[in-house]
Amino acid sequence: MKKSSNGNLYLVVIGCGKVGANVASKASAIGHNVVVVDKDEKAFENLSIEFTGFTISGDATEKDVLLEAKVDKADYIFVLTEDDNTNFLISMACKYYFAAKNVIARVYEPDNIKLFEEYNVKAISPTLLAIEKLSDIVVGDEK
Amino acid sequence: MKKSSNGNLYLVVIGCGKVGANVASKASAIGHNVVVVDKDEKAFENLSIEFTGFTISGDATEKDVLLEAKVDKADYIFVLTEDDNTNFLISMACKYYFAAKNVIARVYEPDNIKLFEEYNVKAISPTLLAIEKLSDIVVGDEK
Repeated sequence: MKKSSNGNLYLVVIGCGKVGANVASKASAIGHNVVVVDKDEKAFENLSIEFTGFTISGDATEKDVLLEAKVDKADYIFVLTEDDNTNFLISMACKYYFAAKNVIARVYEPDNIKLFEEYNVKAISPTLLAIEKLSDIVVGDEK
Repeated sequence: MKKSSNGNLYLVVIGCGKVGANVASKASAIGHNVVVVDKDEKAFENLSIEFTGFTISGDATEKDVLLEAKVDKADYIFVLTEDDNTNFLISMACKYYFAAKNVIARVYEPDNIKLFEEYNVKAISPTLLAIEKLSDIVVGDEK
């Protein structure tokens, strides 16, 4: 991840399930400024107790919520809800309303990866990562 | 993966969804002997057209099906259905009825990983792999 001149980045994490909370907590721990958005306020309980960022409870498919999270100022936006369609919609909104450059989304269905990447969203696919890991075992190249 | 003296291994892959089919196809392509088990015969359509292994349509939670797949002779057993409980049950059956040594299971819920590992099943967690990948991005250590 590219650092800004003072080394601190502004990150928006959308979706505070296990994955989102883990990424947000880690980013906060190493000094980045983090805002986490989730529809369900209870999700913020997944954050580490040391988390020093901000939380917004709201639906990130709504433009106003993205505006409140200042996605237009974000160095990186992580779109990590549990639904590919929702992640695609939010990613597109970030890019086209707010000209966000670095949008990274979780993509469950490997067939969807191409769509995200066509629109310059970096796709992280748990399924594909599992296939890679298992293939490493099969070919004897496990790290 | 440890090779036997002639380099060919006998692998059983249980669950022929995207992940299972991919692993089975890859293993077959590099010359291993592969048997794939799935409840749904249609799942075998996920296999590559070059797949030269065997397929068994049956419920791998049943001992007879595991016996038919010769899990007692398998060098590695990949347990890759889409349900953690099913994967745990099958993994345990492989280990305790058939003394299988190398059982590798897909585990969705990260909280379940510990349980699998306590029983010497190697757990591959797509969620954890995604967290690791995203953390690499956050800390600027992406490979």
